Amino acid sequence: MEDWKDLIRTVPDFPRKGILFRDVTTLLKDGEAFRGVIESFYKRYVSNQVDLVVGVESRGFILGGALAYRLGVGFVPVRKPGKLPAQTIRVEYELEYGRDALEIHRDAIRPGDKVLVLDDLLATGGTASATCQLVEKLQGIVVEVAFLIELLGLKGREKLEGYKVFSMISYEGS
Amino acid sequence: MEDWKDLIRTVPDFPRKGILFRDVTTLLKDGEAFRGVIESFYKRYVSNQVDLVVGVESRGFILGGALAYRLGVGFVPVRKPGKLPAQTIRVEYELEYGRDALEIHRDAIRPGDKVLVLDDLLATGGTASATCQLVEKLQGIVVEVAFLIELLGLKGREKLEGYKVFSMISYEGS
Repeated sequence: MEDWKDLIRTVPDFPRKGILFRDVTTLLKDGEAFRGVIESFYKRYVSNQVDLVVGVESRGFILGGALAYRLGVGFVPVRKPGKLPAQTIRVEYELEYGRDALEIHRDAIRPGDKVLVLDDLLATGGTASATCQLVEKLQGIVVEVAFLIELLGLKGREKLEGYKVFSMISYEGS
Repeated sequence: MEDWKDLIRTVPDFPRKGILFRDVTTLLKDGEAFRGVIESFYKRYVSNQVDLVVGVESRGFILGGALAYRLGVGFVPVRKPGKLPAQTIRVEYELEYGRDALEIHRDAIRPGDKVLVLDDLLATGGTASATCQLVEKLQGIVVEVAFLIELLGLKGREKLEGYKVFSMISYEGS
């Protein structure tokens, strides 16, 4: 996994001054590493009888699509407002400045479906928490919330209290 | 494949009046169908020695991530301006009203890489054509441009003249 960490590029001052952006595209373009990451998630979840993988727009779609395929289950996108065409439900969440919202199709999950929530990055946990709420509003069961990267200094796990949380690679600080 | 077509939901008047939106989320959430689609793409490209799959934001990430994983190659995202953190190149393209642009990381493709461009939908071909230009600016070779869905009435293939184009499911009209 240290090898994978070496493949993640750190871009200073993106999207704004003072932020160290962890860029996973340099890992994803490496076929062997990308495969290794998905295999590692697969081994963790293959015996969990997951029914669906829910991925968060946009980078969560890349890992989520691959893992859903590997597990042989369906993939469900969670998106920003106005992007999903059919009937949706919405959850709002706090940002550092202001509010944002996420949506899921109302018929995307059946009551009792066991759902793995997957995103590339756990930062403050706002989007992941909102995604779990969407799943539960549709009476799905969140098996675990999984990330490729966790920024430990932002304490996103605190916002996900009550859920099982897993991250493959972690960074001290934010 | 007719079964897959049955799983695609048609939403009238989205994103605006008069448009029949082909919603693939109802197919993606069906694990067996999703797997079938990826297997079918895989069979088409396994002997092509593809080096990379390039997927277009956002729905192209879902299929693209899964197919790259299946082929054992890397995945490269093409995104809207300002989303990719490192050095990028940009191509602008015409929309029905106005212009838009797409970006790719400058180091995402090595000269001579054989690239499969994948998106969920071929409509007018604007984004796919811009994506092919991005690949070629980095001296990649576009092996084929592949889509889950093609809207035949919009004649997107004309904008992709000179490229091999493949779609799995097609609709008459727009």
